[in-house]
Amino acid sequence: MQLKIALLGGDGIGPEVLAQSVKCLKAIEETFNHRFELVEAPFGAIAISGSGKPLPNKTLELCKASDAILLGAIGSLEYDNNPEAKVRPEQGLLRIRKELGLFASIRPIKMFPAFLGNSPLKRNIVENTDMVIFRELTGGIYFGQKTLSEDGTTASDLCTYSEGEISRITHLAFKSAKKRRKKLTLVDKANVLETSRLWRKTVTEISKSYPDVEFECLFIDNAAVQMMLNPRQFDVVLTDNMFGDILSDQGSVILGSVGLLPSASAGIDNAMFEPFHGSYPQAKGKNIANPVASILSTAMLLQHFNLNEEANAIVAAVHKSFVKKVVTADVLGSSKYGTDYVGDFISENIV
Amino acid sequence: MQLKIALLGGDGIGPEVLAQSVKCLKAIEETFNHRFELVEAPFGAIAISGSGKPLPNKTLELCKASDAILLGAIGSLEYDNNPEAKVRPEQGLLRIRKELGLFASIRPIKMFPAFLGNSPLKRNIVENTDMVIFRELTGGIYFGQKTLSEDGTTASDLCTYSEGEISRITHLAFKSAKKRRKKLTLVDKANVLETSRLWRKTVTEISKSYPDVEFECLFIDNAAVQMMLNPRQFDVVLTDNMFGDILSDQGSVILGSVGLLPSASAGIDNAMFEPFHGSYPQAKGKNIANPVASILSTAMLLQHFNLNEEANAIVAAVHKSFVKKVVTADVLGSSKYGTDYVGDFISENIV
Ligand SMILES: CC(C)[C@H](C(=O)O)[C@@H](O)C(=O)O
Ligand SMILES: CC(C)[C@H](C(=O)O)[C@@H](O)C(=O)O
Repeated sequence: MQLKIALLGGDGIGPEVLAQSVKCLKAIEETFNHRFELVEAPFGAIAISGSGKPLPNKTLELCKASDAILLGAIGSLEYDNNPEAKVRPEQGLLRIRKELGLFASIRPIKMFPAFLGNSPLKRNIVENTDMVIFRELTGGIYFGQKTLSEDGTTASDLCTYSEGEISRITHLAFKSAKKRRKKLTLVDKANVLETSRLWRKTVTEISKSYPDVEFECLFIDNAAVQMMLNPRQFDVVLTDNMFGDILSDQGSVILGSVGLLPSASAGIDNAMFEPFHGSYPQAKGKNIANPVASILSTAMLLQHFNLNEEANAIVAAVHKSFVKKVVTADVLGSSKYGTDYVGDFISENIV
Repeated sequence: MQLKIALLGGDGIGPEVLAQSVKCLKAIEETFNHRFELVEAPFGAIAISGSGKPLPNKTLELCKASDAILLGAIGSLEYDNNPEAKVRPEQGLLRIRKELGLFASIRPIKMFPAFLGNSPLKRNIVENTDMVIFRELTGGIYFGQKTLSEDGTTASDLCTYSEGEISRITHLAFKSAKKRRKKLTLVDKANVLETSRLWRKTVTEISKSYPDVEFECLFIDNAAVQMMLNPRQFDVVLTDNMFGDILSDQGSVILGSVGLLPSASAGIDNAMFEPFHGSYPQAKGKNIANPVASILSTAMLLQHFNLNEEANAIVAAVHKSFVKKVVTADVLGSSKYGTDYVGDFISENIV
């Protein structure tokens, strides 16, 4: 197979972890005889310093012309400490999602037995956790009209959803549930929000076409509780943009090691793959960042193109690195291995 | 002191736990020589079956004419299982908040050493947790305009905030922080929402009048993570209506026993006190519900009127019940003591 993949290293540790994914892509190319055209482009804070824009037009064009995007991470302390900045790295992320129509964020949260002890939650609670969160990514309060009164004393954000926006991600989520443990949980606040009631009505209707999938609804406040009390009850979780932002970050903590979690943002014609974690600027250039989240995101990319054997080869190599304890310090407390070494080990073990 | 207190037992276990609070109020009356006029009124699902309304006008009138309200709990399975019901118990709760101007929900989350083991989080993480969440309660997306298009395919919810709505609760929160560990964390999503930016601007401005209080801001997704990784870092947490709903429920799980947590909803002329927990209809009439959350809510009521010695007498009696293990089964796994017995024990130990 031939694929054109845009590489957006971004900020902080982004380029370093992405470099390890590139090693894996090259190993896959060789082992499985594919051709990946890999093209780098600036994105995030680093792009702001270059062109004044977090998502330069050229980068956007490249992304549109590519089959998929691999993103490192974005964000820098300069902006985190200055919430009033008018141009911000996050805007690039929101814009790329919108421009490419990446309406479904897919975040698998699967416990790795090797690191069970890292969870802040008790072992008996988190053991065997295996869920995937489907978060709507291009609608809701993130993209609705925003207003600030002229005197600056009143502000508003509009949350809107249409049946179409809800149903396209709902079908993706049900299809995923069918292939998994056949349970789908819709998280909303239908006792308060009109948009949630539309979600509930639409998803309930669609659930009838998936009779083999168990369907339930939870209010977001209760879901935040259940995520801590009994994460194993979840298989596929479906929710809107804002609730999904909160719930998926909360869910990621179950594993105790955010450096292990991949994610995908999928649309009709394009898809972007990136680690769950942020740009961790404090670690930049120190060769200590965990490359596994980025590498597993690369496996998700391959899966997206039905290259399942290839994806499994990456996952198997990652597991080997766990077994051999060739991992970075964040997951073990201490370690003699750096980002580069772990990336080499994993890519060399792709067979 | 003379106080008129409205008693809204509500649904499920509400009336049972409230009855234990009444015992405590009577003990306080006697021991400290106060006069509490206690008046019961229907509210919640039970009021719907009586009058068709979750908050009958007579109940609202009584609440307005009272100095404070003690609420048991509302909600019944009949409505939980039917999100399409047009009249719902929750509407009564939202309406009472709005009509009485109860703009600040105050939820203390304090670890009881006796029940440290009950937390789903590891002991070293939750030990000594002691925070209070200030949630704005009468604004934001809960009360903004809601629309549903005529053909039912598009819905919207408007989130609005004004400087005035933000500043009144902010001052309450800073005053509380001053008396506590002198730290205030604002939780918002200022990298995406206009209303959050107004919160951040307003609260940052007000923080300058409280120079002895350390002030920081966190994005809601990160706050949901930090709540699990390191709850001890929080002292006073301030946030809007929607984020506060999620974060305070998540926070309540830290203790592992939702049956112990009180809450207050305060306005200018009125205040309502209620357990954190719901109406737990499955336990209704079984004499197994934990009355401590309701009893500690009663202590918060007394504190609200500066009856601090009286409030402390209740808290001390509750602690005595913990030490003597006179508690309900939910916190110990099993117990021979029921709701009534625990209520008797605590009220009789108020000295
Ligand atoms: C950076 C921010 C705008 C973004 C979001 O809220 O969507 C991030 O938190 C995420 O979840 O990808
Ligand atoms: C019942 C519901 C409307 C309510 C809310 O969301 O405010 C409840 O969850 C709460 O937190 O008091």
